[in-house]
Amino acid sequence: MQPIVFSDFNPAQNALEESLFHTANGYLGVRACPEEGAPAGVPSIRGAYINAFYDIKPIRYGEKLYGFPETQQGIVNLTDVQNVRLYLEDEAFEPLKTGEVLAARRTLDMERGIVTRFIHWRSPGGREVEVTVRRMASLAQRELFIMHYTVKAVNFAGRVRLVSREEGAVTNFADPDDPRVAGEALQHLRVEEVRPLPAGGLIRSRTIASGLDLAVAVGYTPPASFTLGVQAQPTALEAVMEGSLWQGQSLTMVKHCVFADSRRHGDPAGAALRILAEASARPVLHYESLQKEMLAAFWRRSRVVVGGDDALQSSLDFSLYSLYCSVGRDAVSSMAAKGLSGEGYEGHFFWDTEIYVFPFFLLTDPALARGLLDYRHTILPAAREHARLMGHPTGALYPWRTISGSECSGYFPSGSAQYHLSGDVAHAFLQYYYATGDLQYMAERGGEALVETARLFLDAGHWHEGAFRIGAVTGPDEYSCVVDNNFYTNAGAQETMRGAAMMTRRLREAGLAGQLLAATGVTQEELAAFERAADAMYLPYDEKLGIHAQDDGFLKLAPLDLAAIPRENFPLLLHYHPLWLYRHQVCKQADTVLAHFLYEDLADEGIMRRSYDYYERCTTHDSSLSTCVFAIMAARLGDLGKAVDYFRQSATLDLDDAHGNTKDGIHTANMGGTWLAITAGFGGLRVKPDGLHLHPRLPDAWRAYSFPLTWRGSELRVHATPAGCRVELLAGDEQSIWVYGQPVRAALGQAAELPIPQ
Amino acid sequence: MQPIVFSDFNPAQNALEESLFHTANGYLGVRACPEEGAPAGVPSIRGAYINAFYDIKPIRYGEKLYGFPETQQGIVNLTDVQNVRLYLEDEAFEPLKTGEVLAARRTLDMERGIVTRFIHWRSPGGREVEVTVRRMASLAQRELFIMHYTVKAVNFAGRVRLVSREEGAVTNFADPDDPRVAGEALQHLRVEEVRPLPAGGLIRSRTIASGLDLAVAVGYTPPASFTLGVQAQPTALEAVMEGSLWQGQSLTMVKHCVFADSRRHGDPAGAALRILAEASARPVLHYESLQKEMLAAFWRRSRVVVGGDDALQSSLDFSLYSLYCSVGRDAVSSMAAKGLSGEGYEGHFFWDTEIYVFPFFLLTDPALARGLLDYRHTILPAAREHARLMGHPTGALYPWRTISGSECSGYFPSGSAQYHLSGDVAHAFLQYYYATGDLQYMAERGGEALVETARLFLDAGHWHEGAFRIGAVTGPDEYSCVVDNNFYTNAGAQETMRGAAMMTRRLREAGLAGQLLAATGVTQEELAAFERAADAMYLPYDEKLGIHAQDDGFLKLAPLDLAAIPRENFPLLLHYHPLWLYRHQVCKQADTVLAHFLYEDLADEGIMRRSYDYYERCTTHDSSLSTCVFAIMAARLGDLGKAVDYFRQSATLDLDDAHGNTKDGIHTANMGGTWLAITAGFGGLRVKPDGLHLHPRLPDAWRAYSFPLTWRGSELRVHATPAGCRVELLAGDEQSIWVYGQPVRAALGQAAELPIPQ
Repeated sequence: MQPIVFSDFNPAQNALEESLFHTANGYLGVRACPEEGAPAGVPSIRGAYINAFYDIKPIRYGEKLYGFPETQQGIVNLTDVQNVRLYLEDEAFEPLKTGEVLAARRTLDMERGIVTRFIHWRSPGGREVEVTVRRMASLAQRELFIMHYTVKAVNFAGRVRLVSREEGAVTNFADPDDPRVAGEALQHLRVEEVRPLPAGGLIRSRTIASGLDLAVAVGYTPPASFTLGVQAQPTALEAVMEGSLWQGQSLTMVKHCVFADSRRHGDPAGAALRILAEASARPVLHYESLQKEMLAAFWRRSRVVVGGDDALQSSLDFSLYSLYCSVGRDAVSSMAAKGLSGEGYEGHFFWDTEIYVFPFFLLTDPALARGLLDYRHTILPAAREHARLMGHPTGALYPWRTISGSECSGYFPSGSAQYHLSGDVAHAFLQYYYATGDLQYMAERGGEALVETARLFLDAGHWHEGAFRIGAVTGPDEYSCVVDNNFYTNAGAQETMRGAAMMTRRLREAGLAGQLLAATGVTQEELAAFERAADAMYLPYDEKLGIHAQDDGFLKLAPLDLAAIPRENFPLLLHYHPLWLYRHQVCKQADTVLAHFLYEDLADEGIMRRSYDYYERCTTHDSSLSTCVFAIMAARLGDLGKAVDYFRQSATLDLDDAHGNTKDGIHTANMGGTWLAITAGFGGLRVKPDGLHLHPRLPDAWRAYSFPLTWRGSELRVHATPAGCRVELLAGDEQSIWVYGQPVRAALGQAAELPIPQ
Repeated sequence: MQPIVFSDFNPAQNALEESLFHTANGYLGVRACPEEGAPAGVPSIRGAYINAFYDIKPIRYGEKLYGFPETQQGIVNLTDVQNVRLYLEDEAFEPLKTGEVLAARRTLDMERGIVTRFIHWRSPGGREVEVTVRRMASLAQRELFIMHYTVKAVNFAGRVRLVSREEGAVTNFADPDDPRVAGEALQHLRVEEVRPLPAGGLIRSRTIASGLDLAVAVGYTPPASFTLGVQAQPTALEAVMEGSLWQGQSLTMVKHCVFADSRRHGDPAGAALRILAEASARPVLHYESLQKEMLAAFWRRSRVVVGGDDALQSSLDFSLYSLYCSVGRDAVSSMAAKGLSGEGYEGHFFWDTEIYVFPFFLLTDPALARGLLDYRHTILPAAREHARLMGHPTGALYPWRTISGSECSGYFPSGSAQYHLSGDVAHAFLQYYYATGDLQYMAERGGEALVETARLFLDAGHWHEGAFRIGAVTGPDEYSCVVDNNFYTNAGAQETMRGAAMMTRRLREAGLAGQLLAATGVTQEELAAFERAADAMYLPYDEKLGIHAQDDGFLKLAPLDLAAIPRENFPLLLHYHPLWLYRHQVCKQADTVLAHFLYEDLADEGIMRRSYDYYERCTTHDSSLSTCVFAIMAARLGDLGKAVDYFRQSATLDLDDAHGNTKDGIHTANMGGTWLAITAGFGGLRVKPDGLHLHPRLPDAWRAYSFPLTWRGSELRVHATPAGCRVELLAGDEQSIWVYGQPVRAALGQAAELPIPQ
């Protein structure tokens, strides 16, 4: 597998590269910041994060109305362990500021899970040095982050000093003019103790408002023959390592950093010190081997291969690797919009998880997928409270953006109003059930979320002239807010209510409904009401255009010629007042088109086609969640050339910094969408009540493609080549699936080649 | 005329009484705060204000989107001149805190324009004193506020000390949980100089962000035989007056306070000192006589008389008096939502002025009405800028709330989205023209506002299936926000565009269009476009219900049974999230019903009747702007009993503190609405292109009513009695008007009795 390599030395894109080359393991993420610090003028967002480790801050309003959240959570920038200053005699290694960079290279090795920064630098005094920094966030030991800092004296001999500093006085990043990041730079961590140890130390901190504890234990292994002195400062640890290098010699300092927080550890400091002791006692190779093994298993389960386009293949690899490194692996965390790579969207969890990311894990690593559902179960009480606040006497309304469960949106029209999120969560629970048949899980957790979200929709909607309508919600497209009968939302509400009724009945039949009934008290009358409302769900449809309307009003709004808008005015949200956007037929992202993917039985092919064409003209793709959906639906509709174009846009979005804000973090939903574009798009994959459906198509642009799936405990691989489509059973039991609508049996050594329809 | 008298001593409603008994003159307003200060536990909002004298403060947002205003103006609480502490020997006069109040009375004399506070108090030491404080804000000299402080030693003799303090370190009032007042208590004035003078002093201050200057000059006239010492403190002046009283003696201290600000005075300090010198040199009687004369003229022009209900008559008098004392009299000020009586809505100007208050002045004192239009002309450049910010390449969008002209709304769905405000302004200009025929004024100012607002609507709307539609606006009813085709807004846009075309043509014909054309460059093509759009204006109508829909979606929202909502949950805006409100057929105030009043030619009587009935069931009247409109329309539809009920609710709203927030200031729009309920409601008054129309009706509850009008320079009085309706010419030329649709000539000594239709 080709690594991701950036060998341009371009300080102007430093912050972007910090995101792309961050190291993460689902628990911990460390941006790839220059160890020596970024000088003025070099963009840098120095950060490290623990998934769902948050502080609380007030939300201020120009006018605060009833029910507006008073506080929000925000991911906390952790104790900064990245600082290593290097001195060659009296000269500081400052390649971003002075001297001459002779070569530079950033490398992400996705088979080994290691990021490397290499710089060959000539100091103003003429000393040439090669610095190589390797970083790893251990997949096997989530608290562990290891840095190797190697110095090679190319053309000189002399004293070398390394100063490693762990700084506890940190703030979060902010940009008051960009609604997609925090508006105010705040300090969230207060240092409680700095404890030096013989070859390392401990910094204990507490978040200021949420009162969560963080312990960071550090162990230094200085280069052989170097002296080591550790000093505690009020908010920092500083280790000075000194020694000499002869010309051509290279020496390595190793730093083990262990992060432990009180959301996962009863005694974070104790845990950090214990893990540090274990890790320090083992050779680094131990963790590197484990890392490689885990990644090998990951790639076996997950790697999508597209023949004939190496750059695209790399982008794809990067997407899936990033997803794996970003996803939360416990019940208090999920997948943040930027993973653990930056502070964009403040570490919040959105619908991105359920709709864009969850399917990837569901079909490659179902245990991780279940973890994402566990998180939704964890915050169900908060979602109930949220529903009450929003005026619903029953049900659960999942917050639009949250970490700990309460709504963090400071602008409800494109926040709390996105009721579809509750339908998205219900959809994920149902997909999990359809994919795994795990009735026990539904009995313990899934059923409750389904019933509570169904109740929410039943209460949010009302009957009018024989139809069940839902007013005043916002669909996925945030360029139309607070509308009536958003097609996407109503379709999701319909599925949710039907799903809740179906699941409750199935659990009853299986004698497994006890826990659900105890938790919800759901009655037969309620189930019947769910079904009546679902059956009568109003799904706006325009007879003349032959398409579903995004909402009651959308098709009557002012049309907008997107081509007439200057390129620099995109994304529109940064250049037009929301009212102007709301007044026009313009979409930030796929909305109805997405509904036709998720709820495809609601529309026939003709509607889907016309809908795709109509909304494509309206859509700016200002959201990174858009192009992948157009890719899926273009493939679904047989427009494979266009599908490849959209797919390429999705796949390369971060590496090309196409949205200009990857500096604030990678776009994890888009990465999940990239996987969906291949599997659900070209592969035609759907998870339905009757099982796994495939409908592979092969675009002209590619020789072939293939992707693995984990299905009911078996490992499959789907191949699409000019010779046809083949579903290979790699491990596990035989499986019955559907290909092109026909039942197919996937068995070892038997993989019939089915012709790909033109 | 009966004065308003409160003779209960009720400290719990102190803040309410501070509003009701404030003294104001359109420039200056001083709340009726206890001179000795309010002890802890006694609600008090200590304040004095100059109309449109503002500071600027940041607006904070949870998520700031493009075009959200970054700052807002807020009226500034001025240097506090109300403090007078009285000491009887060693005992402080503190009736709100200690001792015994034997009698207390607040009086507003609306013929003399004087507010009096009387307290008969027994100190803990047994001393009885009567304190009488008279306050006057001079109508003749707007900068002048005079306090008489009279002390009578009832049962003792001894030393008495008066300490008068003018404090420059003041903050504004705030309540973070009530969107109707400021959220943050801020200091807006910085004292620049405290200058003691032999019998008074000067305090110069500057607002912190807006840089406006304020000078307050004070002159003391101590009681005869009392010593006087004036001392300057860092932010205050303090005057100590000492002497003796014998038993039964009463003595008076007089304080002249002069407020001058840099928005009206080139040299505020110089002006304040000059005016103080003049005022001090004159007997107080001079200003009291002028005040009485001016009020006599005011009442002659304005007083509405309702026979048979003294309490109602007092409420009516109070309303009109308050309007007169609140209205701005220069081109930088208008009528704040709370007049000059409090800080509610932060001293901002809304549509309240044009729709609720303007008609009263237009028909009783047209020069004051023209002043209100002058203000809109003053801020036209800001309204143009606002339009650009909101995405309109042409036209002017008047801000929803403002002082200096820029938008101050921190929540655009019920702020900037209220595009109807531009139509309301246009309506006022047109009404002015129809009432006065003042073509010169339209040539100089009115035409420009009409053309610019017409352009705004032309750009905001779009053509769809042959109709001209306006999407994403909010009508007057803030319980439905950002809707398509709000009937009220579209009707106003229609009138605006027609009016602009009509006015431009008329000015051309009169050879007076030069200034308008120079200012706007309006073309014949544009006028034609205005008219095309106006003629094709989409006005949502429901065939089945036979009513106009408030907007495209309203009639399909969930119905709401208002009777089922607990009483304590009103106003709903303080107890329900906006989304919940937006989802239901619930109105904060008249919306479509108001449109049927203002734009009555759009609907026939049947529609109006059904509309009234339908929307009445939906309306909570949580806005103080609602009941008066229902009164007008109930009268219009012949439902006089109901009209009287609604009228009574409007008339007594502040004196009864029916909305519970008169402590933050009186509701001036409702007061204007009270006048409209009589004149436009029972009197059937309309100003139309062909002149003044009347259609008087007499409810059973009343013996009679009458109201004066100023029409084309003549003074008329309309009488409605059981014997019939009579229009009397009191002064000026004969006038042709319309009564019951018939032309009637009002001439001196000729006032035919027309039978009132049943």
